[in-house]
Amino acid sequence: MKVRRSGRLVDMTSYLLDHPRHLVSLTFFAERYGAAKSSISEDLGIIKQTFEEQGIGSLYTIPGAAGGVQFIPHASEKEAHRVIGELLELLSMSDRLLPGGYLYLNDILGNPRIVNKIGRLFASVFAERKIDVVMTVATKGIPIAYAVASYLGVPVVIVRRDSKVTEGSTVSINYVSGSTKRIQNMVLARRSLAEGSHVLIVDDFMKAGGTINGMISLLEEFKATVAGIGVLVEAEDTDERLVDEYISLIRLSEVNVKEKQIKVEEGNYFQFIKPLQIEED
Amino acid sequence: MKVRRSGRLVDMTSYLLDHPRHLVSLTFFAERYGAAKSSISEDLGIIKQTFEEQGIGSLYTIPGAAGGVQFIPHASEKEAHRVIGELLELLSMSDRLLPGGYLYLNDILGNPRIVNKIGRLFASVFAERKIDVVMTVATKGIPIAYAVASYLGVPVVIVRRDSKVTEGSTVSINYVSGSTKRIQNMVLARRSLAEGSHVLIVDDFMKAGGTINGMISLLEEFKATVAGIGVLVEAEDTDERLVDEYISLIRLSEVNVKEKQIKVEEGNYFQFIKPLQIEED
Repeated sequence: MKVRRSGRLVDMTSYLLDHPRHLVSLTFFAERYGAAKSSISEDLGIIKQTFEEQGIGSLYTIPGAAGGVQFIPHASEKEAHRVIGELLELLSMSDRLLPGGYLYLNDILGNPRIVNKIGRLFASVFAERKIDVVMTVATKGIPIAYAVASYLGVPVVIVRRDSKVTEGSTVSINYVSGSTKRIQNMVLARRSLAEGSHVLIVDDFMKAGGTINGMISLLEEFKATVAGIGVLVEAEDTDERLVDEYISLIRLSEVNVKEKQIKVEEGNYFQFIKPLQIEED
Repeated sequence: MKVRRSGRLVDMTSYLLDHPRHLVSLTFFAERYGAAKSSISEDLGIIKQTFEEQGIGSLYTIPGAAGGVQFIPHASEKEAHRVIGELLELLSMSDRLLPGGYLYLNDILGNPRIVNKIGRLFASVFAERKIDVVMTVATKGIPIAYAVASYLGVPVVIVRRDSKVTEGSTVSINYVSGSTKRIQNMVLARRSLAEGSHVLIVDDFMKAGGTINGMISLLEEFKATVAGIGVLVEAEDTDERLVDEYISLIRLSEVNVKEKQIKVEEGNYFQFIKPLQIEED
């Protein structure tokens, strides 16, 4: 079936958005639309320009017989400011402070559109690192992990605090919670993670970082390495943060439990972003 | 900034895919691209035709001053056969049977691309029902719930089996597990769900249906109603299924624990699908 340029642009856009970071050969598109490869190249030029202008990301063309085109999602700095601004506004609305200095985040984490935006920011800032899989701990971090993984085109593994019958054999570790100093348990299905994987750890909230530290210990059991750490909200400065290098979107700068007031500000995200740099031949 | 048709088609496609079921006014697009509304209408005609031909979904135009255009994601029957076929193939690969007749699904549920396809199928079959929110129980159902909710443009609420400090006040119920007959506990944050909501319940696996039945009881506490029930895999026939009306993608038709063999087949999904019917003026 021969498809005209206008139809091709719509379908290629949809296809590329649906397959981030996958190498798609020009032949695939040429056959899909009954079009010449030269026309497909022109189409891709238009899509690339629009994606870059609108802050959607970019297309990366790999020449040669084994080559093709790859869509790299990327949020611009402007878009990141907009999303983080929206989050700050949501976080400062209504009473979110819960006992123990935790924040009520269910409404934000329950909104797939906001979660997808969060995922796009993390995918952008970690775009140039080698990442095989995104890891989080149940439950709150799961939607963020899927959103990031979706934009990075990699799978998700979920660490649990209890072992469930439906996971098969598991690897379990003990770790010390940073804030409560209690010994806790963390479990990952043996089959879930290949040895030597490069793992991006994400979570919704980090206080001292005990949970994330636990995930790092768990990775050692799988001979896997930490490719990066991303948290939506980091709690206000603590003397004894257990995790050194992480990227946060939001920082809780002030917690007044008595008045039930909080102050939030931008996290360290903007220290890490840079424009998408892809070298092309 | 004036944007040409080719650029508009790319950006409008991306925008609409990103905002399923949201009513977008033609004025919004006209201003975004510095284009006449008549040109935008033509663009939308091209996008609608391509979306329908490629099985992405359709566009629904609401005329008048308060009108606009709405993208309704919809998987065709052909696409549904392809996705369910892919799932059947994945499920019959390697040894998935776990003690208790459960299936190992982590690899499938850990793949965002597969999960998104599953979400699109459920969003298609429930497309014409009034749904305010998608509900699931932690942990395995969460990615499916987000995928469905994302295509339906609604939020997710997550029921837990334990009460966590970070949720505020909660409503808790007891229910009887259908297969083990044990009394279990289920908790939902009070703030999570508005009274009177129409709720789509989804989960990864249903045996007798005790967990889903528990969620239905929980909904009564919130004066909410069940808009539908979707499960990825239903276990083989049980005499005492606690849930009557549900839609499943996959059915476990035979479990041989001794030989560690399973047989899987299509669920009841195809009894419920119909072509996307949208009346237009």
